[in-house]
Amino acid sequence: MMRKIYSVALLAISLLSAQPSHQEIADKITRKGLEDLYAFEMLEDLTQYGHRFSGTPGYDKAVQWAEQKLKEVGADSVWLQPVVVPHWVRGNPEKAVATIGKKKIDLSVCALGGSVATPKNGITAEVIEVKSLAEAKQLGERAKGKIIFYNRPFDKTKINPFEAYGGAVDQRSRGAIEAAKVGAVAVLVRSMTNAIYKVPHTGAMRYADTVAKIPAAAISTMDANYLSDELQKGSKVSVTLTMDCTTLPEVQTYSVIGEIRGTEYPNEIVLIGGHLDSWDRGTGAHDDGSGVVQCIDVLRLMHELQLKPKRTIRCVLFANEENGLRGARAYAKNIDTMKEKHIVAIESDAGGFSPRGFGVEADSVRFLKIASFASLLENIGADRIRMGGGGADISVLEKFGTVLIGLSPDPQRYFDYHHTDIDTIDKVHPRELQLGAIAIAILTWALAQEGV
Amino acid sequence: MMRKIYSVALLAISLLSAQPSHQEIADKITRKGLEDLYAFEMLEDLTQYGHRFSGTPGYDKAVQWAEQKLKEVGADSVWLQPVVVPHWVRGNPEKAVATIGKKKIDLSVCALGGSVATPKNGITAEVIEVKSLAEAKQLGERAKGKIIFYNRPFDKTKINPFEAYGGAVDQRSRGAIEAAKVGAVAVLVRSMTNAIYKVPHTGAMRYADTVAKIPAAAISTMDANYLSDELQKGSKVSVTLTMDCTTLPEVQTYSVIGEIRGTEYPNEIVLIGGHLDSWDRGTGAHDDGSGVVQCIDVLRLMHELQLKPKRTIRCVLFANEENGLRGARAYAKNIDTMKEKHIVAIESDAGGFSPRGFGVEADSVRFLKIASFASLLENIGADRIRMGGGGADISVLEKFGTVLIGLSPDPQRYFDYHHTDIDTIDKVHPRELQLGAIAIAILTWALAQEGV
Repeated sequence: MMRKIYSVALLAISLLSAQPSHQEIADKITRKGLEDLYAFEMLEDLTQYGHRFSGTPGYDKAVQWAEQKLKEVGADSVWLQPVVVPHWVRGNPEKAVATIGKKKIDLSVCALGGSVATPKNGITAEVIEVKSLAEAKQLGERAKGKIIFYNRPFDKTKINPFEAYGGAVDQRSRGAIEAAKVGAVAVLVRSMTNAIYKVPHTGAMRYADTVAKIPAAAISTMDANYLSDELQKGSKVSVTLTMDCTTLPEVQTYSVIGEIRGTEYPNEIVLIGGHLDSWDRGTGAHDDGSGVVQCIDVLRLMHELQLKPKRTIRCVLFANEENGLRGARAYAKNIDTMKEKHIVAIESDAGGFSPRGFGVEADSVRFLKIASFASLLENIGADRIRMGGGGADISVLEKFGTVLIGLSPDPQRYFDYHHTDIDTIDKVHPRELQLGAIAIAILTWALAQEGV
Repeated sequence: MMRKIYSVALLAISLLSAQPSHQEIADKITRKGLEDLYAFEMLEDLTQYGHRFSGTPGYDKAVQWAEQKLKEVGADSVWLQPVVVPHWVRGNPEKAVATIGKKKIDLSVCALGGSVATPKNGITAEVIEVKSLAEAKQLGERAKGKIIFYNRPFDKTKINPFEAYGGAVDQRSRGAIEAAKVGAVAVLVRSMTNAIYKVPHTGAMRYADTVAKIPAAAISTMDANYLSDELQKGSKVSVTLTMDCTTLPEVQTYSVIGEIRGTEYPNEIVLIGGHLDSWDRGTGAHDDGSGVVQCIDVLRLMHELQLKPKRTIRCVLFANEENGLRGARAYAKNIDTMKEKHIVAIESDAGGFSPRGFGVEADSVRFLKIASFASLLENIGADRIRMGGGGADISVLEKFGTVLIGLSPDPQRYFDYHHTDIDTIDKVHPRELQLGAIAIAILTWALAQEGV
């Protein structure tokens, strides 16, 4: 009898030890990730052809690349999901010249995404500076025929620049609408960054059907400070803005999806994703090339380490996050809730910097469950799990009750590059990028095994 | 009576509210720090004249600058502490050419700090690659007349590159000694970094009195890989190394010290510090210009916010950390233990990157007390307080029972720049640098008020 108990105990031990702990798997993922630094290798590939703006051949090339890469790294199945996207073209020229007394000064500007063109010879008008949409409204008659210059800077006392961005971006997104309401003929918007330099930042802007569509351009922070100083001194400043942007017919393209099927609960989905499109400046290395290669690398790590998740891990590389969110909307529309349940979604769309942790949008019970995985992330320094997070693409899953999680990398440098010519691969550190992929892989594994 | 109780209660409340909580002070420090970003402004100043290598006029200029700056920011007293430092000069040329068959290849090298020169026409010898000191020893007779090429890379699977550095740096510090013992005529040492590029990294090396002093140079990782590949293929590789470095007579200079006297326990010192010297490459922007300006900024923040610490906060900018630690030794020697007690010392010498937390060298009781301040550091993301830390300069205080603390910034990029031509201010982010200063200021305040 003693002998039998002994051998049963031995069997139990061997069964137990055949199942490595989550910590052991986290360590394996970390080791393998740092050994290969494969996320950066993919990013070099992805960014070498230029930007991936919606509607352009560059985006379609990225679709092919991503489909091929997902197959290569060992996804069980890979497919394309059709999406119809807008096709806005920046055009040329894109130029602003300030006239101050007898001086003519070239300003560093770029059209905001979606802007209409100016007449061929540009718009020349006096500039009025405001710090908010409310101030623009209050201008009333005085705005008529003028260029409104939105110049509320980032609040640099905000520790997290994403918060400063949230506090300034209404100028970019709604500035043209409020300016047109009071009769302005164009807007210049201070670039969305703490950095003071000559780099203009593009980004999405909107029009309203009920008011005139007026041209909208971003101006570099250095030039914004210059204009503001001149206006403070009482100088009369006028600007000639010339832009040739246009909106072409919509284009049919794709989001790219690959997954590793779950062994026990294949219909329960742990979604990981980023967006495959970028703005038409730089090469979208941080925004969101980083998120794309990190999520592909999660599948690669699972495959190479022969990890078989209980739930399905699905990597979704969304089309058209930047100027439409069409990929995410198409994805949500196509979810067959009879067949699959998205229990949790993780988005990486805050840059390829050292991961600090995750932001979680969930009720407190599920939040605590996810927070309990923090210890697995401690060695790599990504264990700050905080309430509040998610991402633009995965926000469409909220209505399905999906827990939404966003990777939180160190946020200080992101808005130095965001939506600019300098969002290029030399700003991405191979190990920082990889640690982000490792963080997602570790959390994804725990969620795929334990659920939420 | 009721009225009396009421007014006593009111008085108590007003007294209590007259003492802002540590958290309130942490918030004020954070706000003011981010508003001014003064650490970066100082770093621009400090680095504009070039490097600050021991024994050079650049270092003496930095002494004057620091003395002036400490006075300017409101230290109660500022003084210079005499230190005699070595004066090694790199010289020119500093060159290595590999001969492989008929090919001649220029290698990116630089002398290690303290190396002797080669003869005028250089040393030409066959190269033997080894991965460790032990392997060099084992070469025995075969090493005679050869150049030993130490080529053990950083272990990239280490999450923290400082750990990888610790695992590789014996090749640099002791490589020449072991090589000379087996009769080698010079050493080439793979640069101490994970990055693969053409940038050689200098750093300290030692000789032993009992063996020959042979020239020692660092070789860039890219060239190290190239040589190694050729040797793997079976090519015979010889190198001509030409260096003209020399050691001049020692020089009298200073460490710079400034303090804010404690209001209640002036003889209890909370020391904060970094080293004012740098290597003779780049401008020592991260190593350790960052630590210097952060510590000065702590005094500035205290002064500007009119914070009066109970214990003395002393900022020590040590001379000669890089090649001698003479400043720290002189400081320790001059401590009058009858008059003052160094309860705790914080060093910032790991770069000006986003602060993650602090490493603490203390017994568990005092460690727990310090760890209890983590919540004050949470908002700025610097709340990872871990056992083990300190810094080279403050290590000399260990014998006084001082608690030793090192700031832990994000470590991934540090060894990309360390001891190289590219350790320049463009690699430092103003907000990341400032958050480090804020982290030190918050912890310093708590320690000055609560002790350890």
